[in-house]
Amino acid sequence: MFKASFLYKLTFNLRQKRNYKMSFVNVPAESQFPIQNLPYGVFSTNDNKKRRIGVAIGEEILDLSVVKHLFSGPILSSKQDVFASETLNAFMALGKSAWVEARSTLTKILGTEDPTLRENAELRSKAFVKQSQATMHLPASIGDYTDFYSSESHATNVGIMFRGKENALMPNWKWIPVGYHGRASSVVVSGTPIKRPCGQLKADDQDAPTYGPCRLLDFELETAFFVGGEETKLGETVSIKEAGDRIFGVVLMNDWSARDIQKWEYVPLGPFLGKSFGTTISPWIVTIDALKPFVIDNPKQDPEVLEYLKDDEPFTFDVDLEVLIKPQSSSTPTTVCKSNLKNLYWTMKQQLAHHTVNGCNIRPGDLMGSGTISGTEPTSFGSMLELSWKGTKTVSVGEETRKFIADNDEVIIKGFCQKDGIKIGFGECTGKVLPAEKKY
Amino acid sequence: MFKASFLYKLTFNLRQKRNYKMSFVNVPAESQFPIQNLPYGVFSTNDNKKRRIGVAIGEEILDLSVVKHLFSGPILSSKQDVFASETLNAFMALGKSAWVEARSTLTKILGTEDPTLRENAELRSKAFVKQSQATMHLPASIGDYTDFYSSESHATNVGIMFRGKENALMPNWKWIPVGYHGRASSVVVSGTPIKRPCGQLKADDQDAPTYGPCRLLDFELETAFFVGGEETKLGETVSIKEAGDRIFGVVLMNDWSARDIQKWEYVPLGPFLGKSFGTTISPWIVTIDALKPFVIDNPKQDPEVLEYLKDDEPFTFDVDLEVLIKPQSSSTPTTVCKSNLKNLYWTMKQQLAHHTVNGCNIRPGDLMGSGTISGTEPTSFGSMLELSWKGTKTVSVGEETRKFIADNDEVIIKGFCQKDGIKIGFGECTGKVLPAEKKY
Repeated sequence: MFKASFLYKLTFNLRQKRNYKMSFVNVPAESQFPIQNLPYGVFSTNDNKKRRIGVAIGEEILDLSVVKHLFSGPILSSKQDVFASETLNAFMALGKSAWVEARSTLTKILGTEDPTLRENAELRSKAFVKQSQATMHLPASIGDYTDFYSSESHATNVGIMFRGKENALMPNWKWIPVGYHGRASSVVVSGTPIKRPCGQLKADDQDAPTYGPCRLLDFELETAFFVGGEETKLGETVSIKEAGDRIFGVVLMNDWSARDIQKWEYVPLGPFLGKSFGTTISPWIVTIDALKPFVIDNPKQDPEVLEYLKDDEPFTFDVDLEVLIKPQSSSTPTTVCKSNLKNLYWTMKQQLAHHTVNGCNIRPGDLMGSGTISGTEPTSFGSMLELSWKGTKTVSVGEETRKFIADNDEVIIKGFCQKDGIKIGFGECTGKVLPAEKKY
Repeated sequence: MFKASFLYKLTFNLRQKRNYKMSFVNVPAESQFPIQNLPYGVFSTNDNKKRRIGVAIGEEILDLSVVKHLFSGPILSSKQDVFASETLNAFMALGKSAWVEARSTLTKILGTEDPTLRENAELRSKAFVKQSQATMHLPASIGDYTDFYSSESHATNVGIMFRGKENALMPNWKWIPVGYHGRASSVVVSGTPIKRPCGQLKADDQDAPTYGPCRLLDFELETAFFVGGEETKLGETVSIKEAGDRIFGVVLMNDWSARDIQKWEYVPLGPFLGKSFGTTISPWIVTIDALKPFVIDNPKQDPEVLEYLKDDEPFTFDVDLEVLIKPQSSSTPTTVCKSNLKNLYWTMKQQLAHHTVNGCNIRPGDLMGSGTISGTEPTSFGSMLELSWKGTKTVSVGEETRKFIADNDEVIIKGFCQKDGIKIGFGECTGKVLPAEKKY
């Protein structure tokens, strides 16, 4: 075992070195952003507050507003202005073939062979910004935000805790990618502090609710995808075959949850204020084309799903996910959960086909969350609710313990995939919890 | 009784004549838009496809993009461009004092005394458009759409049907203005056809769901308010005292519902595809200032609500509401429900204060629905679900009967208030149901 692992690591490192040299931009070995990744984001700098679209490469950002004239392919040559926008919505709207063309151009101009950018010192000096000197913003204007509930382990865990083992999974769960409409205004970019929410709380032994700060603050380990392609008309559907070309890319997401607020409010209309105080996403959108090398078979679905959800194309991705907590007293964060994007029963394509089967219209920039991604192992549970099993046990965080999230804790989500010497990452999705401001 | 009513009608007519003469624009006796109303909307015309902001007066629309220079008050003189916008969002963002100033200017320039517009034939010819020649659009770009559930009779009726008389109202209902996040993309303006949705349906005696057209299509009689004032920051609250100045105005709303899709999907995360195939609103936003003369005492709330929801200011409005159905075979619509906006347990101010108590940020143009507005009388129930009592009885519609909505039915919601010789209306909220398009 040791030997195989050692050999794997050695050859991986060799292959990685080769791959990381495929760009003329220096890509350090630990970088999440080799030329195989090329995620899109929106940034600004201290000396230029205008928001611009960028692509991460190594420790740099390529400012697409500066190099938009290099997108000279058949589709983008007449649409270069999408890269002068302050959000990615216009580029997302162009659809799959434009995204493929853009990736091809980026791979070329950032590669070692093409001299256009490499040999133009003046253009290079304007076109590259250090990630350390950039402020990241929401990558798109989010028209609607939907959150699904697609991890069987998570749905089962929550079901056992609240309804007992016999009724853990709802009867609809294996037929429908269950989801709900979330609040778009409160989706924020990584690094934005989250204030502990106040609201109505009611303990089981209390007759009446009281107002106060949430006591059971939680994270939820999720990913989310951005919808692309032209806006559909109300009444139109997106079939499962079309759905893949409608998915622009994926971010990490922390769907912060106030368990006590949620518990009292959510029957019968679902989560509301227990969620809408903040949802954090990572700033870099990793495209489906970048994820393609990491695709694996979809999970077997039993019972067989209805026709409109049937799909043979593998659309499950092997992405390692990790949640870390850094209490204020600690200098380093502690890993509390290791999961994987493959722990989803429903694919993104199925989620999107289901979302539109009733004629619901979608717009480029819509955000659709996976739901909490828990695996079967207790260390892979994607929320404190599950990790502390409803507060019945503690979770070690540095020298402290937690059942839920404490004030001034920073919660960090990371994600990356590796294979054949390619290792690409999602950057980070972080948020620090500020104390509640009790007003009434 | 007859005499009093006759006398009331006579004096009402006399007062109405006086009031309707307060504008130099001709306002017919049956008009919903006397100078006391002045609702805002967004329209275009065949010869000018650009969307413009207008105010309804009599049978005309005053095009504010043409008369924006007349808004010369201390606040608006430097903000006239908000009236050149294609949506009302920028005007909504200016806040209450700007709205008051705009109403004062409109009352003056449309009145009989001020000559500015009245005596300028050239300006008048550009500034007025006949409503019959205008196409109405959504009045604002809706960032987020929330729907509440604030009629006690409706919540009780639904509760009795699905959980029995003993557990009709959920324990949280009298403590929380229960609500949920809806889908913003599928909110459409009156007149937009609604295609009968397809989706997963499962009868109680079936083992597995099937795909097919919704069989239990319903309307929901609602109103909704548009949020105004500057965008709040995530973590900020809007107190109940501030909430009134944050409410720009009110529209009629039909929250179309697919009862069978909803029933199978909604546990545990709430309504999703049972709602997101379409939500229709009326095009004219009636402002709170126009509704002020029709304010009445708030309903008594027992148990006493928590401090952050307490409010002495009356913010309940006496607005008659009516739902009519016109089957394709009928030349005229039939009234199926008469209700009133006063049939709400929670006020709009309470809804907004609750929505933000957790720090959820709001943006001008956010739309917040009342929930179905049912009264206690069976004829006042605001949905077919209640009117047909879950399909156990029929409702007469012209020469036909209905349990739910049939293909090609047109559903029309109307609303108006009258008092002291002033009668103002909300226009209409209509939608025709097109047959389903079964695809799979």
